[in-house]
Amino acid sequence: MRAAVMRNKKLVVDTLLTPEPGPGEVLVKTLACGICGSDLHTLKHAEKLVAVSRHSGGVFNMDLSRDIVMGNEFCAEIVDHGPNTSKHLKVGTRICSMPVLMRPDGVQTVGYSNDNPGGYGEYMRLTEALLLAVPNGLSTEQAALTEPMAVGLHAVEKARLDKDDVPLVIGCGPVGLAVIASLRLKGVRPIVAADFSSRRRELAAAVGADVIVNPAEKSPYQSWREVAVWNDPSRAPQLPPWAPGPPLRPAVIFECVGVPGVIDQIMVAAPQGARLVVVGVCMERDSIEPMFGINKELNVQFVLGYTREEFAAMLRHIAEGAIPTEPLVTGKVGVEGVAQAFADLGSPERHAKILVEPWRS
Amino acid sequence: MRAAVMRNKKLVVDTLLTPEPGPGEVLVKTLACGICGSDLHTLKHAEKLVAVSRHSGGVFNMDLSRDIVMGNEFCAEIVDHGPNTSKHLKVGTRICSMPVLMRPDGVQTVGYSNDNPGGYGEYMRLTEALLLAVPNGLSTEQAALTEPMAVGLHAVEKARLDKDDVPLVIGCGPVGLAVIASLRLKGVRPIVAADFSSRRRELAAAVGADVIVNPAEKSPYQSWREVAVWNDPSRAPQLPPWAPGPPLRPAVIFECVGVPGVIDQIMVAAPQGARLVVVGVCMERDSIEPMFGINKELNVQFVLGYTREEFAAMLRHIAEGAIPTEPLVTGKVGVEGVAQAFADLGSPERHAKILVEPWRS
Repeated sequence: MRAAVMRNKKLVVDTLLTPEPGPGEVLVKTLACGICGSDLHTLKHAEKLVAVSRHSGGVFNMDLSRDIVMGNEFCAEIVDHGPNTSKHLKVGTRICSMPVLMRPDGVQTVGYSNDNPGGYGEYMRLTEALLLAVPNGLSTEQAALTEPMAVGLHAVEKARLDKDDVPLVIGCGPVGLAVIASLRLKGVRPIVAADFSSRRRELAAAVGADVIVNPAEKSPYQSWREVAVWNDPSRAPQLPPWAPGPPLRPAVIFECVGVPGVIDQIMVAAPQGARLVVVGVCMERDSIEPMFGINKELNVQFVLGYTREEFAAMLRHIAEGAIPTEPLVTGKVGVEGVAQAFADLGSPERHAKILVEPWRS
Repeated sequence: MRAAVMRNKKLVVDTLLTPEPGPGEVLVKTLACGICGSDLHTLKHAEKLVAVSRHSGGVFNMDLSRDIVMGNEFCAEIVDHGPNTSKHLKVGTRICSMPVLMRPDGVQTVGYSNDNPGGYGEYMRLTEALLLAVPNGLSTEQAALTEPMAVGLHAVEKARLDKDDVPLVIGCGPVGLAVIASLRLKGVRPIVAADFSSRRRELAAAVGADVIVNPAEKSPYQSWREVAVWNDPSRAPQLPPWAPGPPLRPAVIFECVGVPGVIDQIMVAAPQGARLVVVGVCMERDSIEPMFGINKELNVQFVLGYTREEFAAMLRHIAEGAIPTEPLVTGKVGVEGVAQAFADLGSPERHAKILVEPWRS
């Protein structure tokens, strides 16, 4: 099969063996696969990712001297059933799946793997028990956004939001946009969002942010304070008398940038008692000043991925039109275009999500 | 009055003006005042503390070119009432108080202040409305431990513990011991505690730790794992199939050391989904690897101080014998002995808590 392959830390196009479905697995044809921010990270920081994963119980156990076909945000079509399958979904059914295989000896990743090619290739093998049929009428493009949007839903679930909380989303790349969409879904408002890129601020509006800030012009924390006052001051909790300023609704700040220094910046600027949800994936060592956390009694929740239930719920939400996915797809490429697409995604003004269609010529 | 004074970053003994109680305030005679870890920090890192406090809304707004009488863990006796006081507590009553003054223009600290001397001097002024009478029969020494033990109660309250949680306390200095005592009070067990000092491990046992580890001999995390298995495996929550190892009860790790590098060490070693409660006060820049937090979905809660309710509750718990305070006082000094006591507290083998009795000759 044709595939865009990570080989010696570069992306090349080559013809590889089509994977064979094992027991309980199906062979699928990739219809569309989004390029994930983690794929950009992986191309740039593969050694680091593998090293940290080994330490910390992560699943990125790749041999970087061998070929890797990435791609974990896909919609595909069943073309064949392996042994010991129930075949409850027929050949030709469009499906989504979490990008993992459930094997008797444990879980394996699809995409970040030497053995299980992801959606940058024409074919994948997937675990039948994890397949979700794409509801009739939902486009392949939108279905392929299930995975990245589920990341936002998981972050919002882990934040354990209360109706009084006022969220602030720092960074409106694909992760920040997914968080905004799920905040809107949950009805936790107003949603304040900040990004230096005008294109990303437009997308933040399109997916449901209420107050959108260019940090070059105004502090996002100031904008947050302006909308976080209690409309009914009698509902404000009693604060200790030394708490600074008027009582404000609780702050939940989503870190959706993932580069060193951002957690520190947020800790310095956050209001008293704020909860930080770290959704951005910073793969480098980072530095903080604990005294800011201590003086303000901050809480920092790191999050990763999504549960099986959250993934399935997101596909339903998209199919029901509850998540505005249409503005997010800003480009499509075939396997030959993947390397250039990775380069293009470096500029926030041009793209949100680029889909790879491996069959496209 | 005689006092141990912080002057030019050194501790000296001098005679100062006795403070005057303002409206709503009382004059008290200091009976005993514990030396707090934060006082040691302040003597060493005063500029840093003041700078971070100014940034971050803290209350340490001292002029370091002027005298400061520290001491925030005290039991005292009322000697005079200022104007506009209710006098519901008579002269001669022994009291405890949070170390703050409630003034019409805001809250001021007692101790970390140029204007409001703390318990290393013979007299203090305090806000009448904050005074708590020491219950009859409770010793002055034990009452003076209300403040540091309330820090532990607050940390445990902020941890929002569930009965299935298994706590691990890293560091058994006064802060760690206060956390252990409040964990025992709440009945959250088994309590695993770790310290390199044999004296501190003895004290951890005395205040209620169940499993006590010398990290030089065995990993505290391994000891934690051995006791964190579910006795009734059917009660274990369903984990994602890729979660490593057998399901364990949730980990709540109290960081009670407060030096750079400890948060990072805990993040590297913590089990999946652990909650960290940062009670130690690290006043320097620190570094972490966010990927450990992300891969294990860790939560980090920074805490500071206590609420008014927690402070009052701790005095009651001590009076009722529910908190074993007696092993904690390991020395007593007069004002002349304060500088040497600060030096002695550098060695974990010699002391837990030293009380200053300013009237002692």
